[in-house]
Amino acid sequence: MQEQNKGLSQTVDRLSEESSYRQLFHSYRDGEAMPSGEQLKKIVDLCRAILFPGYYGNARISKQTIRYHTGVNIETLHSLLTSQIYAGLCFSDLDCETCPEEKIFAEAEKLSEAFIETLPELRRVLATDAEATFHNDPAAKNAGEIIFCYPGFRAIVNYRIAHELFLLNVPFIPRMITEMAHSENGIDIHPGAVIGDHFTIDHGTGTVIGETSVIGNYVRIFQGVSLAGEKILPDEKGNVARGIPRHPVLEDHVTVYSNATLWDGSGSAGGNDLWQCLGHPGCACGRNSQTIVFN
Amino acid sequence: MQEQNKGLSQTVDRLSEESSYRQLFHSYRDGEAMPSGEQLKKIVDLCRAILFPGYYGNARISKQTIRYHTGVNIETLHSLLTSQIYAGLCFSDLDCETCPEEKIFAEAEKLSEAFIETLPELRRVLATDAEATFHNDPAAKNAGEIIFCYPGFRAIVNYRIAHELFLLNVPFIPRMITEMAHSENGIDIHPGAVIGDHFTIDHGTGTVIGETSVIGNYVRIFQGVSLAGEKILPDEKGNVARGIPRHPVLEDHVTVYSNATLWDGSGSAGGNDLWQCLGHPGCACGRNSQTIVFN
Amino acid sequence: MQEQNKGLSQTVDRLSEESSYRQLFHSYRDGEAMPSGEQLKKIVDLCRAILFPGYYGNARISKQTIRYHTGVNIETLHSLLTSQIYAGLCFSDLDCETCPEEKIFAEAEKLSEAFIETLPELRRVLATDAEATFHNDPAAKNAGEIIFCYPGFRAIVNYRIAHELFLLNVPFIPRMITEMAHSENGIDIHPGAVIGDHFTIDHGTGTVIGETSVIGNYVRIFQGVSLAGEKILPDEKGNVARGIPRHPVLEDHVTVYSNATLWDGSGSAGGNDLWQCLGHPGCACGRNSQTIVFN
Amino acid sequence: MQEQNKGLSQTVDRLSEESSYRQLFHSYRDGEAMPSGEQLKKIVDLCRAILFPGYYGNARISKQTIRYHTGVNIETLHSLLTSQIYAGLCFSDLDCETCPEEKIFAEAEKLSEAFIETLPELRRVLATDAEATFHNDPAAKNAGEIIFCYPGFRAIVNYRIAHELFLLNVPFIPRMITEMAHSENGIDIHPGAVIGDHFTIDHGTGTVIGETSVIGNYVRIFQGVSLAGEKILPDEKGNVARGIPRHPVLEDHVTVYSNATLWDGSGSAGGNDLWQCLGHPGCACGRNSQTIVFN
Amino acid sequence: MQEQNKGLSQTVDRLSEESSYRQLFHSYRDGEAMPSGEQLKKIVDLCRAILFPGYYGNARISKQTIRYHTGVNIETLHSLLTSQIYAGLCFSDLDCETCPEEKIFAEAEKLSEAFIETLPELRRVLATDAEATFHNDPAAKNAGEIIFCYPGFRAIVNYRIAHELFLLNVPFIPRMITEMAHSENGIDIHPGAVIGDHFTIDHGTGTVIGETSVIGNYVRIFQGVSLAGEKILPDEKGNVARGIPRHPVLEDHVTVYSNATLWDGSGSAGGNDLWQCLGHPGCACGRNSQTIVFN
Amino acid sequence: MQEQNKGLSQTVDRLSEESSYRQLFHSYRDGEAMPSGEQLKKIVDLCRAILFPGYYGNARISKQTIRYHTGVNIETLHSLLTSQIYAGLCFSDLDCETCPEEKIFAEAEKLSEAFIETLPELRRVLATDAEATFHNDPAAKNAGEIIFCYPGFRAIVNYRIAHELFLLNVPFIPRMITEMAHSENGIDIHPGAVIGDHFTIDHGTGTVIGETSVIGNYVRIFQGVSLAGEKILPDEKGNVARGIPRHPVLEDHVTVYSNATLWDGSGSAGGNDLWQCLGHPGCACGRNSQTIVFN
Repeated sequence: MQEQNKGLSQTVDRLSEESSYRQLFHSYRDGEAMPSGEQLKKIVDLCRAILFPGYYGNARISKQTIRYHTGVNIETLHSLLTSQIYAGLCFSDLDCETCPEEKIFAEAEKLSEAFIETLPELRRVLATDAEATFHNDPAAKNAGEIIFCYPGFRAIVNYRIAHELFLLNVPFIPRMITEMAHSENGIDIHPGAVIGDHFTIDHGTGTVIGETSVIGNYVRIFQGVSLAGEKILPDEKGNVARGIPRHPVLEDHVTVYSNATLWDGSGSAGGNDLWQCLGHPGCACGRNSQTIVFN
Repeated sequence: MQEQNKGLSQTVDRLSEESSYRQLFHSYRDGEAMPSGEQLKKIVDLCRAILFPGYYGNARISKQTIRYHTGVNIETLHSLLTSQIYAGLCFSDLDCETCPEEKIFAEAEKLSEAFIETLPELRRVLATDAEATFHNDPAAKNAGEIIFCYPGFRAIVNYRIAHELFLLNVPFIPRMITEMAHSENGIDIHPGAVIGDHFTIDHGTGTVIGETSVIGNYVRIFQGVSLAGEKILPDEKGNVARGIPRHPVLEDHVTVYSNATLWDGSGSAGGNDLWQCLGHPGCACGRNSQTIVFN
Repeated sequence: MQEQNKGLSQTVDRLSEESSYRQLFHSYRDGEAMPSGEQLKKIVDLCRAILFPGYYGNARISKQTIRYHTGVNIETLHSLLTSQIYAGLCFSDLDCETCPEEKIFAEAEKLSEAFIETLPELRRVLATDAEATFHNDPAAKNAGEIIFCYPGFRAIVNYRIAHELFLLNVPFIPRMITEMAHSENGIDIHPGAVIGDHFTIDHGTGTVIGETSVIGNYVRIFQGVSLAGEKILPDEKGNVARGIPRHPVLEDHVTVYSNATLWDGSGSAGGNDLWQCLGHPGCACGRNSQTIVFN
Repeated sequence: MQEQNKGLSQTVDRLSEESSYRQLFHSYRDGEAMPSGEQLKKIVDLCRAILFPGYYGNARISKQTIRYHTGVNIETLHSLLTSQIYAGLCFSDLDCETCPEEKIFAEAEKLSEAFIETLPELRRVLATDAEATFHNDPAAKNAGEIIFCYPGFRAIVNYRIAHELFLLNVPFIPRMITEMAHSENGIDIHPGAVIGDHFTIDHGTGTVIGETSVIGNYVRIFQGVSLAGEKILPDEKGNVARGIPRHPVLEDHVTVYSNATLWDGSGSAGGNDLWQCLGHPGCACGRNSQTIVFN
Repeated sequence: MQEQNKGLSQTVDRLSEESSYRQLFHSYRDGEAMPSGEQLKKIVDLCRAILFPGYYGNARISKQTIRYHTGVNIETLHSLLTSQIYAGLCFSDLDCETCPEEKIFAEAEKLSEAFIETLPELRRVLATDAEATFHNDPAAKNAGEIIFCYPGFRAIVNYRIAHELFLLNVPFIPRMITEMAHSENGIDIHPGAVIGDHFTIDHGTGTVIGETSVIGNYVRIFQGVSLAGEKILPDEKGNVARGIPRHPVLEDHVTVYSNATLWDGSGSAGGNDLWQCLGHPGCACGRNSQTIVFN
Repeated sequence: MQEQNKGLSQTVDRLSEESSYRQLFHSYRDGEAMPSGEQLKKIVDLCRAILFPGYYGNARISKQTIRYHTGVNIETLHSLLTSQIYAGLCFSDLDCETCPEEKIFAEAEKLSEAFIETLPELRRVLATDAEATFHNDPAAKNAGEIIFCYPGFRAIVNYRIAHELFLLNVPFIPRMITEMAHSENGIDIHPGAVIGDHFTIDHGTGTVIGETSVIGNYVRIFQGVSLAGEKILPDEKGNVARGIPRHPVLEDHVTVYSNATLWDGSGSAGGNDLWQCLGHPGCACGRNSQTIVFN
């Protein structure tokens, strides 16, 4: 019988010492599961299948049968989403060892239902995004193309789903859903950003929209644009104030061209800051306005 | 027997109303299929296996057997590509309810064959790209490394495949093929761009090359570079003129360094514009030339 | 029986001519395999499971059982990594037709063991990265979130694994491992870069850290940042000098904000160059300041 | 570059000669596909999910949602079954090179619909089989057990599905469906057999029920039972008469115990033969008794 | 938009009427799942990997590492088996709507642990079966062959696992585990049968060993053998007595040759019946001989 | 942090003691692999695709392209088969710790080539089996049906492949290949049996053909038939003589009907025994008749 290499054995021992893994160890409670990227992908795919009937899920759909498909999809979505929200609630609250599981599960179920009730409104807003993208892109032949495979539109769908979950205070899951789009398309929108209708992202790789950004209607953003946070200085105790708006506000009909960085170098958050638009003269940046407005 | 939650039922009803889904609904004709990202991935992989024998598809290939492998791969490629082009033709022409399917299918078959006949020339040009990338990257040990896994070279392969299909007026599919590279490597080249041989992309994430860009031979482009379109103003009726060249022209031997944005702010397309190179003094931009030339 | 299309047959013939494929052909030696992206993904996943017990691999782990899990994972890692290093050694040295396979395999086994012995130290350093990321991101609720799904942290893990393999002179594999993170998150760190502890990447898409970059402790880098190489001019014989440091050196506690390009336009490598920070006034570049220091 | 082994090359040549493969070659017409065992498995699984709601397909079903699930399943079944029947029609009629594809497809669609309309009656009869199996097996705790996993019942479901398709003159597919049960459970029922309600098969491995068998209601059959065909002697021209009933007829309430072979050795088909029950005295064979009756 | 076929719609309606599905409907309680054949396959595979280290699971095992592998496998087995036993308990007790889930789950966990504690003894007995099979089969070169792929031995492993679960009164799961072997190898052993050590099944297809069979040590059984139950007549109220031994008892060192049916035609269960051995003169049946003995 | 259950820990300890696993442990040598059922399935599928072009592998094949397909398939078969034969050689000779790997591998390669050279003859014989099956089955519409999905024919293909490997003295693999058919169709033919051309198996479940059986041309066998071995008595030292013919010899044109057991009860192997045909009067057994003849 072969002997295991001694060096490997010693490494196993060192890695198994509590002092080594203490900081990087995750201990489950019974019945818990980690949120799953794979499950969240299924959830987003189900949302697409529900919102855009006929484009996803390879199904032939007719007036008679749309109700069957929607019914089955909603039910499956409810079940998958409940279990992911449940996992998110557990993971975000690791120390709550006394919370009864049933209570957390019931909460997850309620949140899942609340999200599903936003789907009709979500569909309405996404229709405006698809329409705006179609009008802005001379290459597009029909709106179907945009719905089916434009990366900017795909990222917006993920963001809008994540934003609704964010508004419901679902922890952890919204961020994972926008990270999915970030990984797929290089577009990084924080689920907390507030974005109006008729929104367009063109090309998009490298675009970052920060947590407290506020974006109006009919806004169009190109690749490499950063709606970056103001630099918030810690107070004398070294604590960073949280929850203060620290990202740009874009009014209606603004276009931000490629690789522009919107930035407030003043060092103090909030207020009537001097936002600068770096890197692109096509942006009418650098005006001393409270928001950033383009004609 | 359990009752379904009432809220869910009502959401199903709202989502099944025609007024809700009308704008976002895709209705197939019989015999149609949507183009499939999965199938297109197989198609690009087959092209790689044909163009670079021995690198892809895990096959041992010898002088005697290369004909067997090429024969089988060409045949499979022909069959898969025909069906995807067929799907693309259907999807791009949704209203053509009277087109006979057979005619569309025959057209797809012809286009698929025409593409396959470009493969020998495609291989010749890609050999120059691999060679140029090898010469430009001191870290590379042999050309095999570049062919096998350089992200910039992978993106160029997708672009060159897509460009040939674009020249054949295949709708929809070319864009999906360059989007695959965009998603994988963050490099967004429009299939319509015209790019010479010995082309190199280094790092590449965030690089955008627009539809009417024209790029000479021996050009090298770094990450974050935008060959962005000129801003085309709509005419008095609000229509945007289409098909006018609106992107930069790079002559032979140009290098565009990282994060440079090539941009024409004049507001009028075509002609002898003042292109500006934003963000990078290493680019000899901003000269009033018809093209952009670097030493 | 159907006839094959003549055009296809001729294309098969042309692609099977030696003159056509000579430059783009990979010929295996017996017993060789190509390095496999799929296997490398498993290897990185195994490293994560070992380094961060309980977060990956869906396993419940307790004090009693951590040794079982670590033992099995180390063993599997050893076996997979050995075969990938072996493939890398073969691929990087294609002409060595006389090397005895056994010798190469034994070398691969030794390198695999050497890498595994660095895992405890790797875990220690990654704990500082996770801690720094947590302190820098006000949105993070606990360090678990960072370990489990922050794209910047994921990219750092890939880099640190790849860097250890790079230090062991393993060819080819380190680059493939950092390319995996590049493709997933748009963050491109060369395995040769030297990076201190408490390192943070925020958002990250489009960030490039070149081969000879040296980065101190407590450094924080945002999206779209390029630590680009100096332009190295070839000597009179047209050869580019290799191995000379040509990328920026960042001292401890530096922050580089979004879309900044660190760049030395002097045209001569090494020495006390005037680095310029392009595209972002928030970077106090080129100055011997507390924020960013170049030697 | 390696040379391929000469022996292999010669074998390839010999196998590629037309004289070698002529008898064993299948040449498709355009647009044809072979029937697919994998697709037929999906079809049978869909039928189970429709017929026994809640047992298959992992779905929670309630009074409100059963219509959604049934609607989606029926539609998917219709689509899959149509394409398999189409493949079966093509495969069974290889020489019909002039048949218009559209006509064959329309025929397949009609047959698929006709089959689906038998599902309610199929469910009714299968309920009697499940009930009978439950009554006959003292070990069963509830009917759910039988529906969910009794091999005999599974074989009966496949047979009843196949029999309906057989009655519609669908070629080839019915046999493949009963072969699936044969392979899974060792029970070989020809789709042409006529079997009454309340039918039970116990254990079942090795049981064979031939094409022209006729079985009454409330019949129970054990493992290893053969309802074998009479030996039909060819006429003077060496042709075997086809279509003549040549298998046993079992009346209502018959039980055939394990390993019994029902056999007519008279050598002449049809008529009031003396069937013998071989191998088991528990069968009151060959006698016009209450237990087993032959006409 | 296409219309769905009317016939299909009507069938959906008929199948969705409660009167149609009432008898064949399975309604879950919350939190329940159906036992899963796929999970049970994983469970049996895990048992094999634990019992026969090195043969299954593709793992290199040494004296040092066997504990790691066993530890991880036991833990995974415990978790999977607990959830399947839980599913089995729920499914077998559908009406118990008031049982607290937690209590059922705790019961499942206890049963799973109790089963795992029998594994060392299970391994000991299976070693005798492997040894006996090796001695009885002149074609076998080493015991490894038997462990790795003899169908008879595989069926015995499934039976012995199932029998331990049967003894623990785990419902439903034991039967599913022996059915897996039945489907794979055509060997149908009821989990309730009592079988001594050094047991061999040769070829095996069609062999049936009934619920109350009792088999001694060193017994060898060939293909097609039925240890069939006596015919138990219902009492005057039509009820069949349950739990009475009704299958043969084989003493030590008995061999039952191919296709023999052991059968008691007396019509009364229990007692000192005259068993008959049908179909094979090689079996010294029905006689109180050294070879085959019935009580 | 949770504690692992004590009982489980103790079981892990007991199962990890050498005295427990000694008999049931498989220790690999370096570089070894176990033969793999999955790989063998691929090998048999490749053989089918080569032997019956157009039926398997979903490929359109024409006169022009059959050479491409055959070439690629032969090459893949050669590579897969070599590695499985290599694994079989290692597994069957566990104690040969000093055999050089290279020598075993070269032997495997030679055997793989030798097998491949038998494929043209294998195809010729299988064509006679398909033809005979077609003539014997009045239900078959064309020979394609038999090739594509008759279970008896599938079993014969596996047997004939396995038999060629058996003749080459490949250990272990031939048996695994016939076991695959045994598991799929319940037909158990030992690879050592010698079977003439025009062979037919009808229904087949439970049919066993032993190792030294010799079967002539034009033989037809039904389900449940056992060509069982004579009972070989051990000599006074308890050793069973090996290699002596102990199974029936069937002459040309014999038909063996369902559930017949051919059996020699004389207790002495070889010679001119009195074979008995048990269970079926339709077999003219034991007599030196035209139908069934034993030597």
